[in-house]
Amino acid sequence: MDPAAKYFCREATERERAVFEGGIALAALYHQFVGTPISRADRRAVETLEDAMERAAKLQPYREDVKVKINIDARKDVSSPYGYESLRGEHLDLTVKTRYGRAKATARLRYIPELDYPLMYIEEVSEG
Amino acid sequence: MDPAAKYFCREATERERAVFEGGIALAALYHQFVGTPISRADRRAVETLEDAMERAAKLQPYREDVKVKINIDARKDVSSPYGYESLRGEHLDLTVKTRYGRAKATARLRYIPELDYPLMYIEEVSEG
Amino acid sequence: MDPAAKYFCREATERERAVFEGGIALAALYHQFVGTPISRADRRAVETLEDAMERAAKLQPYREDVKVKINIDARKDVSSPYGYESLRGEHLDLTVKTRYGRAKATARLRYIPELDYPLMYIEEVSEG
Amino acid sequence: MDPAAKYFCREATERERAVFEGGIALAALYHQFVGTPISRADRRAVETLEDAMERAAKLQPYREDVKVKINIDARKDVSSPYGYESLRGEHLDLTVKTRYGRAKATARLRYIPELDYPLMYIEEVSEG
Repeated sequence: MDPAAKYFCREATERERAVFEGGIALAALYHQFVGTPISRADRRAVETLEDAMERAAKLQPYREDVKVKINIDARKDVSSPYGYESLRGEHLDLTVKTRYGRAKATARLRYIPELDYPLMYIEEVSEG
Repeated sequence: MDPAAKYFCREATERERAVFEGGIALAALYHQFVGTPISRADRRAVETLEDAMERAAKLQPYREDVKVKINIDARKDVSSPYGYESLRGEHLDLTVKTRYGRAKATARLRYIPELDYPLMYIEEVSEG
Repeated sequence: MDPAAKYFCREATERERAVFEGGIALAALYHQFVGTPISRADRRAVETLEDAMERAAKLQPYREDVKVKINIDARKDVSSPYGYESLRGEHLDLTVKTRYGRAKATARLRYIPELDYPLMYIEEVSEG
Repeated sequence: MDPAAKYFCREATERERAVFEGGIALAALYHQFVGTPISRADRRAVETLEDAMERAAKLQPYREDVKVKINIDARKDVSSPYGYESLRGEHLDLTVKTRYGRAKATARLRYIPELDYPLMYIEEVSEG
């Protein structure tokens, strides 16, 4: 039972609920974590951040699975004390699988070179 | 023409695109701005923040209108140098109207006392 | 009277308090607002964000003045719906003047090409 | 050798540099991570977030050690899908040890009930 169901308009379908939660999950991860220090030289720090982001996103309702991949470019000289970077949308590859009732959706964020933009899009949506 | 259309699965309807953008907009506002200093004693600072949040959200694609209202509770003693607060979900009332093709959606975030939760929900969705 | 004074160690000088607040102010602005949508095509949105950032930073104690300048590069094609950017450290030029007792400090964040890094540094510190 | 030393004013002492970095580290952690979903019901998610925050903070220059403790209150009914919380300053206990040249500082953030405020303060500063 969804204690929030009554706040949603009747017109919203289960597929739309699943897709809505997917959009929320992607934007939450993006806007929460962009700016976090990351470094090619400390792979363990990056993996721990990926793990923390996945676990945080899964605490929200109707998420079935969340995968976070951070791809660091090789631009910076890591031997300098200023050789780390700040997490940007371009580094992120996010996949969020949501389910609401019988409906399922997969939402994705990844950098699209053609658009020069970290695009959030619907990769799959179905009614089970 | 939407240069990103080809990245979305064919199954995603225009209504689902509109709803997806609504979810993104709400979560972006929440996770970007939660933590910002606010104070009952400086109404102008709060209004400027509301305005900045609306304008930032409207830069993203397929937003028709964005309304941001920050409701500050009266808990803090504003005469102390530590008398300001940090923006929390409980303070926010957000309304985002999106349009994709012929479809329109209204997404809302507001604090629901019954759930003790700042709920993001779909208030309206239609095919125009 | 500073109701928090007793929590600071006795060794901390007034200059150190002023410098500490300067560091806090710069990092708060950076990590709070990096990721916010901005666009060359909407100068008003950028100015409102600068204003909101200044007003938020001034709510915190011991700030005398805060200046926020956002310099947007011309890289993006603003005619695309995906033609906006996300605020990054490289866009920011921040100046924070703090005062604690008789001590004053000016802290600055700006992008330093030589370091390829948005450096936070102490521009001035004095005992009045 | 500190490639950024020349940007700091000559008046800034080594102790002031250490204290400045401490202030930056605390505010970066606060404003970056406040808003992240956390739950009493998933202790592992909270521990991973603490670890990720420590590792991220240590990537920045002149940090000797960083400890992050997240104290979740027991207010929420974790059996609801909406039973998680968002990280707030009140949950945080942060200790950052910095060193610059011969100077060392310990900066702390913790919630002070008397002030009803998550205070950032200097716990120790010395010239080694």
